[in-house]
Amino acid sequence: MKQLPLQKAFTLIEPGPVLLISTADKGKNNLMTLSWSMVIDFTPRFAFTTGPWNFSYNALLKTKQCVIAVPTAQLGAAIVKIGDCSGADTDKFKKFKLTPLPAAQVKAPLVKECYANIECRVIDHIKKHDIFILEAVAAWINPAIKDTRLLHAVGDGTFTIDGPKRNYRKFMKDKLPDGV
Amino acid sequence: MKQLPLQKAFTLIEPGPVLLISTADKGKNNLMTLSWSMVIDFTPRFAFTTGPWNFSYNALLKTKQCVIAVPTAQLGAAIVKIGDCSGADTDKFKKFKLTPLPAAQVKAPLVKECYANIECRVIDHIKKHDIFILEAVAAWINPAIKDTRLLHAVGDGTFTIDGPKRNYRKFMKDKLPDGV
Repeated sequence: MKQLPLQKAFTLIEPGPVLLISTADKGKNNLMTLSWSMVIDFTPRFAFTTGPWNFSYNALLKTKQCVIAVPTAQLGAAIVKIGDCSGADTDKFKKFKLTPLPAAQVKAPLVKECYANIECRVIDHIKKHDIFILEAVAAWINPAIKDTRLLHAVGDGTFTIDGPKRNYRKFMKDKLPDGV
Repeated sequence: MKQLPLQKAFTLIEPGPVLLISTADKGKNNLMTLSWSMVIDFTPRFAFTTGPWNFSYNALLKTKQCVIAVPTAQLGAAIVKIGDCSGADTDKFKKFKLTPLPAAQVKAPLVKECYANIECRVIDHIKKHDIFILEAVAAWINPAIKDTRLLHAVGDGTFTIDGPKRNYRKFMKDKLPDGV
């Protein structure tokens, strides 16, 4: 894994891809699939929503740590299936042949097969809306993954894969943070 | 505009496209470009982040209303340029040749040239993180727009347009809300 400067980590979340959230609680790794997330600050800080029906919920509240893993479209159906079973009775890393790698600053594991991994601390939980606020502490890219097209959930069981790119940098140069 | 059942409105936001947020304050319409948004509930409820540096911020706090307009990739550079000027000194509808249409339940206008428009009430503002919580009250589709590919901001001035689709509905049927 190659370290990604932290000020670039928000560029992995801003496009709105489907994410995997890894947690580790009582020595047990787990994964959840998540589409309800957003950037809230370039520093970077992120927000996502989940609730007590999710097995990862208690691990997030208790450990106050997680890794945001950014899968590419190649992981395809596995991403969806990870969201359709529970860590309560399933070792998802084993079931979906994913490799947990030690993170630098949190106990939750990186996911080797994902294009990017962002180590995060849970710095707030807005109970009223079940919104978790995360601060990233380290970010990693897997340089072996060449096709970096991300997957976006429509929410009805269909998904879109990244298509053509556009560069509008000249229209927003003054809005970009340093180093991005 | 054709009415979209409210329970389907989250499917416009979940894929993470760049959005336009319309507001109306003191009889003046305004638009902002926004990528930092997420679904927080199927009902539907949404969250987004913006701050006092944004001219729309006070209108959102004061009127507690907005429209989330979902532009397609055809609006291209205009979407970016709308985010690079301010409603303080610019009539963005006029400058970018966009047509404000009256909404049914809020004073903020729909944007005719956008594929979808979701009328929302601001039901909460989490000041600590400048997160706005919205509840949708009506949703509309412009059936004249046939190419519905959305635009996703990477955050570095580049953007991706929706590409190939995948249908994984069979893997998550039990997770889909009724009518979706």
